[in-house]
Amino acid sequence: MDQYTTEKLKSIVGTKNFFDSKEDKLVYSYDGTPVYKQLPEAIVFPQDDEQISKIIKLANQEKFSIVPRGAGTGLSGGAIPTENSVVVVMTKWNKILEVDSNNLTAWVEPGVVTGLFQKEVEKLGLFYPPDPGSLTVCTIGGNVANNAGGLRGLKYGVTKNYVLGVEMILPNGELLKTGGKNMKDVAGYNLRDFIVGSEGTLGIITKVLLKLIPKPTQSITLLIFFDKLIDAGKTVADIIASHIVPSMMEFLDNTTINCVEDYTHIGLPRKSEAILLIEIDGRGSIVQEDAETIRKIAVKNNATALKGASDENEANILKTARRSAFSALARRMPTTILEDATVPRSELPIMIEKVSKAGKMFNVTFGNFGHAGDGNLHPTCLTDERDSKELDKAHRAFDFIFNEAIKLGGTITGEHGTGLAKKHFLEQVAGPAGVDMMKKIKLAIDHNNILNPGKIFTISPKCEGSMPTKREQIKDFHV
Amino acid sequence: MDQYTTEKLKSIVGTKNFFDSKEDKLVYSYDGTPVYKQLPEAIVFPQDDEQISKIIKLANQEKFSIVPRGAGTGLSGGAIPTENSVVVVMTKWNKILEVDSNNLTAWVEPGVVTGLFQKEVEKLGLFYPPDPGSLTVCTIGGNVANNAGGLRGLKYGVTKNYVLGVEMILPNGELLKTGGKNMKDVAGYNLRDFIVGSEGTLGIITKVLLKLIPKPTQSITLLIFFDKLIDAGKTVADIIASHIVPSMMEFLDNTTINCVEDYTHIGLPRKSEAILLIEIDGRGSIVQEDAETIRKIAVKNNATALKGASDENEANILKTARRSAFSALARRMPTTILEDATVPRSELPIMIEKVSKAGKMFNVTFGNFGHAGDGNLHPTCLTDERDSKELDKAHRAFDFIFNEAIKLGGTITGEHGTGLAKKHFLEQVAGPAGVDMMKKIKLAIDHNNILNPGKIFTISPKCEGSMPTKREQIKDFHV
Repeated sequence: MDQYTTEKLKSIVGTKNFFDSKEDKLVYSYDGTPVYKQLPEAIVFPQDDEQISKIIKLANQEKFSIVPRGAGTGLSGGAIPTENSVVVVMTKWNKILEVDSNNLTAWVEPGVVTGLFQKEVEKLGLFYPPDPGSLTVCTIGGNVANNAGGLRGLKYGVTKNYVLGVEMILPNGELLKTGGKNMKDVAGYNLRDFIVGSEGTLGIITKVLLKLIPKPTQSITLLIFFDKLIDAGKTVADIIASHIVPSMMEFLDNTTINCVEDYTHIGLPRKSEAILLIEIDGRGSIVQEDAETIRKIAVKNNATALKGASDENEANILKTARRSAFSALARRMPTTILEDATVPRSELPIMIEKVSKAGKMFNVTFGNFGHAGDGNLHPTCLTDERDSKELDKAHRAFDFIFNEAIKLGGTITGEHGTGLAKKHFLEQVAGPAGVDMMKKIKLAIDHNNILNPGKIFTISPKCEGSMPTKREQIKDFHV
Repeated sequence: MDQYTTEKLKSIVGTKNFFDSKEDKLVYSYDGTPVYKQLPEAIVFPQDDEQISKIIKLANQEKFSIVPRGAGTGLSGGAIPTENSVVVVMTKWNKILEVDSNNLTAWVEPGVVTGLFQKEVEKLGLFYPPDPGSLTVCTIGGNVANNAGGLRGLKYGVTKNYVLGVEMILPNGELLKTGGKNMKDVAGYNLRDFIVGSEGTLGIITKVLLKLIPKPTQSITLLIFFDKLIDAGKTVADIIASHIVPSMMEFLDNTTINCVEDYTHIGLPRKSEAILLIEIDGRGSIVQEDAETIRKIAVKNNATALKGASDENEANILKTARRSAFSALARRMPTTILEDATVPRSELPIMIEKVSKAGKMFNVTFGNFGHAGDGNLHPTCLTDERDSKELDKAHRAFDFIFNEAIKLGGTITGEHGTGLAKKHFLEQVAGPAGVDMMKKIKLAIDHNNILNPGKIFTISPKCEGSMPTKREQIKDFHV
């Protein structure tokens, strides 16, 4: 990056909000995704909308890329710097600007931590359901950019179901305000929902209006143990068929159970092939009735034990144990690649078997867990990126898993986004016409392809570029 | 339209599916929207995806416009032919292709009538909540194109919340398949949700995958009468503040009550200034408890009477009476202009007053009713389009209403779409940056602007066109 641009950036954000030492660059060279790394040219912490607009205009003029970043907990490489890029960090935009109890809405800045926001609104008897595994760290801006899911998706939906409005600086430097406090709004194209999940490629989010709902007054948390994987799968299918909609229905396989137990020491049965963690919430006697129905279904399907949390504290311990699955697995081996294959719910038992098969076929270790009620699995490969042969085996195992998911009518990512890690699969799942449409929209809005380029898809100079292979990408993006 | 194009169209769809007599053109010169009319050049009923693709390619080649059309019940002019256009009618695509009870999904063709589809899935214990007022006539394709709402929006959301997948022929003639049976999918941009509500400007929908939910087992329907409008408004606000979420909370003003009573003779109290029609549904004792809480809130706010439906039949009579509001009002005067102003829920009482004020200010008769729980009102002007002075007064009254709605943070359309009728207001509500972004996306996907051009916004040859005034549009589009 030339001195003119450096000085210009400093003059926009102020010297104390500009960083370009080797150490600083290293810190921002990666996100939560293993393997991918790339040094940026600089890191800036903008202070207001106008500064962001100026940075974007400068990027168009001087032809550098902009990589927007929140807490960097993403698992598909969405916040990995691209070549010749400036990382724009939004974590200091962390104010809850308004909670409107009459309209059940809240205006927040993008750097607000999801879990902290939830605690704040719960004090008012309100509820913000989306709860990604990383909720104690991740930020609303990143949640919106990736349309983050979570454990409660089954009953309550994902981030997009709670985004009422977005303010964003566009690739031309203009401020877009879309959506508002109206429960319904069909004026013009639905830009708001299109921005949710666009992974920082269409602009920098500066403000989000979230929808809140009344907090459920009662909940029951159950932990159900199975000796056989298949019985857990059948239990999930039977619960869905019974038309009960739990607020949570999480699955952990034996490897995950053991890693979580090593990490948390809460007494999980190490020999179980599977655990289901189920939460039912709502109001009144229904909650108890549904818990009883679930208990009967589990017993019918050979559950070996069923444990109910005796109080909220114990329920939280169980849920925190599930949320720690990624961290727990990550302690086992130097590199943990956590994926996000999702299938129609009826195909879940088959998909669980396919993950086991992948482990055996390619001789790699998988932990498997995820949102069973949504058909959203997180097969997690425990490997070592320093050993290229091991890494290659892991990639081949994931190729197999994704191909099987797609064959089952599934998708490559349920809640983590496409980013760098899965873009070479996008055409298989979205079709050539779909990817072509996405690229046309991207270029119509970002002519110079400066906003988080290379994420989701690759745009060649002539906008017809073929997708690079995964191996090429990894080479490209290595430090 | 030249003979070459006519013959080409006939050869694509077959002579018996092609119509261009004066009488046929007249039938397709209007939709549910008053005032706007325009003769098309021809009408075609395509038989399969390939025919649609060929029609679209021909349109690009010969530069005619395509206006997709379902049942034509739209209220914003979305299906009004444009100049030099061919209407593509999809009503014969009326098959339910699959109901998947394991995944709670259904594949349907776009011409399936919404109400008939609901009845079919209810036979299986399943539920498709979106219920536009026109549900006995309107079709799923039009519901998707307009992101149709309905009476149950408050609790269950609108059409977009139930669209899992769409197949659509794009403006380049290619088939786009987006979405699927996965409960969660964030692979690439969210094209699916962007198509919902795009009003036929981005392609022709040929297949829709809908989400179903378990049918609620219990419901209570209440009719509450008020002598004073303001008391009905307060009741709505208090119910929302109590964190009860009714499945329906509908408002009717005195004019509407009298028109509905003239039409249905079900014994509505003609002197009441307002009625609320409330439905609570769910499972178990909660339903009864919520009904009791609502009753107390209503009494506190001076309700003069409260009537509970004694059985499902009576409940259906009440709901059908509400659904007939538009037809009932339409009997009073030659022209009925029904609008769709929506405000944040807290602003509803103010907005109801503004509609009354508009009637007095411009000396026109308004009936007012709508989805009180959503802040979505349908102020309906009873006028006579043959009298240009009367019509002008009506338009000025609506200009006032929309401006007031926008001032309150509201929007010009909650569920009917922008179409022709409201496009001159779009920039006020979506902002110049928003409208600019919409136009860029439209042109990126539809270079020749052949798909339903002039709807939502006007694209001038250089894509910078200023919005024409309403009066200009009406002149343009009159027969």
